[in-house]
Amino acid sequence: MALAAAPGNVAAVELQRILSRSMTGLRQSTLREVMAQAAAPDVLSFALGMPAPELLPAAEIERATRRVLENSAHLQYALPLPALKEWLVELMARRGVRCRPSQIFLTTGAQQGISLVAQLLLDPGGPLLVEETVYDGIRLATRILEPEVRTVPTDPRRGIDVDAVEAVLESGFRPALLYLITDGHNPLGVSLSEDRRRRLAELARRYGVTLLEDDAYGFLSYEGPAPPLIHAFDPEWVLYLGSFSKVLAPALRVGWLVVPEDLVPRLSALKHGNDCDTATLSQRIVAEHLSRGDFPLHLHRLREEYRHRRDTLLAALERHFHGPGAGRLARATRWNRPSAGMFVWAELPSSVDVARLLELAIRDERVAFSPGQAFAMGEGEAGLHAARLSFATLSPDRIDEGVARLARALARYDSG
Amino acid sequence: MALAAAPGNVAAVELQRILSRSMTGLRQSTLREVMAQAAAPDVLSFALGMPAPELLPAAEIERATRRVLENSAHLQYALPLPALKEWLVELMARRGVRCRPSQIFLTTGAQQGISLVAQLLLDPGGPLLVEETVYDGIRLATRILEPEVRTVPTDPRRGIDVDAVEAVLESGFRPALLYLITDGHNPLGVSLSEDRRRRLAELARRYGVTLLEDDAYGFLSYEGPAPPLIHAFDPEWVLYLGSFSKVLAPALRVGWLVVPEDLVPRLSALKHGNDCDTATLSQRIVAEHLSRGDFPLHLHRLREEYRHRRDTLLAALERHFHGPGAGRLARATRWNRPSAGMFVWAELPSSVDVARLLELAIRDERVAFSPGQAFAMGEGEAGLHAARLSFATLSPDRIDEGVARLARALARYDSG
Repeated sequence: MALAAAPGNVAAVELQRILSRSMTGLRQSTLREVMAQAAAPDVLSFALGMPAPELLPAAEIERATRRVLENSAHLQYALPLPALKEWLVELMARRGVRCRPSQIFLTTGAQQGISLVAQLLLDPGGPLLVEETVYDGIRLATRILEPEVRTVPTDPRRGIDVDAVEAVLESGFRPALLYLITDGHNPLGVSLSEDRRRRLAELARRYGVTLLEDDAYGFLSYEGPAPPLIHAFDPEWVLYLGSFSKVLAPALRVGWLVVPEDLVPRLSALKHGNDCDTATLSQRIVAEHLSRGDFPLHLHRLREEYRHRRDTLLAALERHFHGPGAGRLARATRWNRPSAGMFVWAELPSSVDVARLLELAIRDERVAFSPGQAFAMGEGEAGLHAARLSFATLSPDRIDEGVARLARALARYDSG
Repeated sequence: MALAAAPGNVAAVELQRILSRSMTGLRQSTLREVMAQAAAPDVLSFALGMPAPELLPAAEIERATRRVLENSAHLQYALPLPALKEWLVELMARRGVRCRPSQIFLTTGAQQGISLVAQLLLDPGGPLLVEETVYDGIRLATRILEPEVRTVPTDPRRGIDVDAVEAVLESGFRPALLYLITDGHNPLGVSLSEDRRRRLAELARRYGVTLLEDDAYGFLSYEGPAPPLIHAFDPEWVLYLGSFSKVLAPALRVGWLVVPEDLVPRLSALKHGNDCDTATLSQRIVAEHLSRGDFPLHLHRLREEYRHRRDTLLAALERHFHGPGAGRLARATRWNRPSAGMFVWAELPSSVDVARLLELAIRDERVAFSPGQAFAMGEGEAGLHAARLSFATLSPDRIDEGVARLARALARYDSG
């Protein structure tokens, strides 16, 4: 047999034969496609939940790395870092979460936390409950298990419809998992009322349903203390998920779960199969960085800056969409006022084909956003006429310019 | 409803109810248990495939990190690093693998490569073919999919039984995946003959079966050039898996796949669901480090040192197990002479309960190894009377002392 001459040319028909069922038709996430298009340097992008680049603490991370690498053993296989778990217990207290180091499980970013919890609880074909509009990482994480997905309505002003959750559970549907985001919802920006949190915790316990509470944005709150997390109402049926990607640096890939400690060895076995459950250089860098004690100040600065950017975005929307000279479609657009996180949710008139608007906006006005439908979990029309706008990435003056471009794109769309 | 007082105390009976089927009875990997026991500083451990700590290049990694972090944007979300893919194409040429950057897929260590390929190809309950004794990461990676596992015999001197593979395929069993290790097999230490490689590639194509060729140890070869990888005989049906964990640093968690480029977007979608397919700080550090040009020299030094350690281990076994004064069980022990990797496979007399021997060895002689059964894929007795000895971690004088302790432990076992 001769060496094959041209690698990489398996015919598509052959590939379909060898791929697993869940891969059939699987494309990259819509967010990845938008990310690629919106990455051109002259595009002002509201599309992604990327931290403000100028607030990424490169010098501090470099100093921490230098100290970590004074000991070459820190490059070796080792158990997940106990020191980081200790620091996280302290950090969790700032979110009102009481826990012990033995309840903390370190992950390769929050996305892995979602994936591992799904693997822990969900059988192939098993039942999953989500909002009709929510972070698409839950869909991507569970897809290989081909779950039976049930959705409940949600809303950019009040969040998940708890009555609908109760009705679904009452009807006999018993999800292995209900995934939700309590503060600074992605993509809706909304934070739940204390009453909704309390009721969700009660439902979890009453029906024996595990809640995965994604708190990736919870440290970024702009209106003083939020109500307690759902986890605070029931630390047994609610699993907490945290991340350093939005508050320190995405490229570190460090997240964590807070779970009943019985689950930790099982998560460890699962993680070993996923990517080895070993201490990473990033875990050591984060622990070293936290030990310096200036992370609370960094969080404070982030909150100040992001609050300013949120207010800038809201003012720009008011000016360019509802002010003098605004077009017909702009005037009919509505948005919410998030108290946490990175996102404003804008609802456009139902006549607007948002996918087409996005194409036009990037091509003609060099501005981008995420189409609401990228976060649709069911077959319905959720998010079909909406746009997610991140206020975290762009500087305030670029935010204003970007919203002006959006308004122009909408006017063009209307006249085109 | 009051705040729950004591977190973390879900009753075991409740947990069993909420866990997915595949989690029932799942324990941490045996290797993790051995790692914990053998981690005491006074234990001489042959148990794990851990690189020599004094060869971990902390100063070089620190320099690379400093250069990477001169740009704070390197802490941001970004696409998987193109520069690293370019460097890997060059590195792959040293393994005889011809590929383009567009065929390279970056992973969170090689373990994630196994996990993603399994997700790509294996349906829940789908067919999987493995050797009866092989790295248990394949079992851990596929467990949630509850595969139908078929095993074929393997051997510490010749490796996977290709006639048995052919017979299984001939009988109509069509695995979604055959996982194997061509050079420096974990745990057997064996490297395949050119004839076996060629035949495996032929079988893959003839029966339409994908091979995942794990090359984590292939750069560590001690007897001059090995035959071409199976990938060289068929780059369409054979997927290549590489890792920096054994040749640079485990804590970086950087691995890669070389696949037909049609598979790359699908792997990207899968990885997004697993832990986000984004450039990591580690990817940037590795690329920066490779750009310095001294990695080939580092590899050369690793090979020299590990060859010396292999020879030291073999000589020590000869002296303490087969030399004057050796006990009955030691004299009856056999082992192989690996030409690559980190492991020697020792076969003890079938009267020896290796699990009990390991317990005694750690407790009374402060020496550890991995029991062969930790790598058993089927229900049979594979590896039941064998031990995997890594020669990579301990310095040569400690290797000799460790083998002396092993021989004493075996004598104690015989007399106890």
